[in-house]
Amino acid sequence: MATVRLIEIKEDILSDNRNLADEIRITLQRHKVFLLNLMASPGGGKTSLILKTISGMKDAFNIGVIEGDIDSMVDAEKVVKEGVPAVQLKTGGFCHLEASMVDMALKEMDLESLNLIIIENIGNLVCPAEFDTGAVKNVMILSVPEGDDKPLKYPLMFSICDVLIVNKIDYLSIADFDMNAVKERVLKLNPGIKIFEVSCKTGEGIEAWIQWLTDEINCYVKKDC
Amino acid sequence: MATVRLIEIKEDILSDNRNLADEIRITLQRHKVFLLNLMASPGGGKTSLILKTISGMKDAFNIGVIEGDIDSMVDAEKVVKEGVPAVQLKTGGFCHLEASMVDMALKEMDLESLNLIIIENIGNLVCPAEFDTGAVKNVMILSVPEGDDKPLKYPLMFSICDVLIVNKIDYLSIADFDMNAVKERVLKLNPGIKIFEVSCKTGEGIEAWIQWLTDEINCYVKKDC
Repeated sequence: MATVRLIEIKEDILSDNRNLADEIRITLQRHKVFLLNLMASPGGGKTSLILKTISGMKDAFNIGVIEGDIDSMVDAEKVVKEGVPAVQLKTGGFCHLEASMVDMALKEMDLESLNLIIIENIGNLVCPAEFDTGAVKNVMILSVPEGDDKPLKYPLMFSICDVLIVNKIDYLSIADFDMNAVKERVLKLNPGIKIFEVSCKTGEGIEAWIQWLTDEINCYVKKDC
Repeated sequence: MATVRLIEIKEDILSDNRNLADEIRITLQRHKVFLLNLMASPGGGKTSLILKTISGMKDAFNIGVIEGDIDSMVDAEKVVKEGVPAVQLKTGGFCHLEASMVDMALKEMDLESLNLIIIENIGNLVCPAEFDTGAVKNVMILSVPEGDDKPLKYPLMFSICDVLIVNKIDYLSIADFDMNAVKERVLKLNPGIKIFEVSCKTGEGIEAWIQWLTDEINCYVKKDC
């Protein structure tokens, strides 16, 4: 009697990925390197937030950046101009970064000399939410022009993040964006999430974000918490 | 001086995939199993061609099927009804099969008892063309209602296949489909390609396809060529 055997590929791949992500966290803990995974839609402000973060923190910490892009190096070049070493991962079509890709990038970086590595993940709100990169904290940006319905449409992304940064608050006066509705929707999905309202353009709110990240790194690296 | 290091992920992945595909070919050659990779658009007639092929060849050969699907098992169930063992690969979103996935499926099959394994790849004309599955021969279906411009739009797929099956020729009388133009476009991309015109519905042309496949398997398995 002929039968069907079923193999669920995605579950196998996700489970292998989680194991490698755990290994990355152990390695980075040994080197006292804090890995931050930054996710957002295209144009949400990932590179702008990274540049603001570098500028506000580079005197206190040695920072490196892993740039994920489908096919370009422009973001990495902007980061390097700020004096920060970058590894560019060109995925050639893949719409997320996996732990194995982050692992490749880390092998090109001098972990002894770094305190903070920021991953700029591929710009979308779907696949990056499914793949653990090995980061200590996951941060996402929602920008005001994208609309306040995004937590309803992409619940997984809002559920797995430790921090939500609502960017482009300088648009609030002209955008049809209900900040309270966003907070209510997000906190329902993820009661422990930390929310910052910022404008990378005007600089408003950036200080609070940098203070939070500084405290987290001190807690992780220097056990000062 | 800060610098950017560049890592091309897709090239690395494709090269790892090719190496594994070569290993699969060596293993299958040892077991005298002929692996056929069948590709087409959704609805092009992959399952119908597999069912016709099983029905025409099952007296002479022991056949198994690897069914690739994003999220369903209906094709595998149809195949099993014909008395042929099947492994269902549910990719959970991935739009192509890679050698590693085929390798998982082969581990679930009794290679000693089989002469021919047919892979029904995921239905699209883009990604499956890039990933070597370890097959001995790559076959694609173009169905008449899809139009005669497809070789212009998906040149890679038409370039890497050993066989093009033009299916649904029973639609030729009502479709705006120039068979000579298709042949000319395809042979320009791939002068060595073998072309069969068939209708899985009426059975027209199926015999010639089955004769070709029988000869190829005898050549491969029994060295009778």
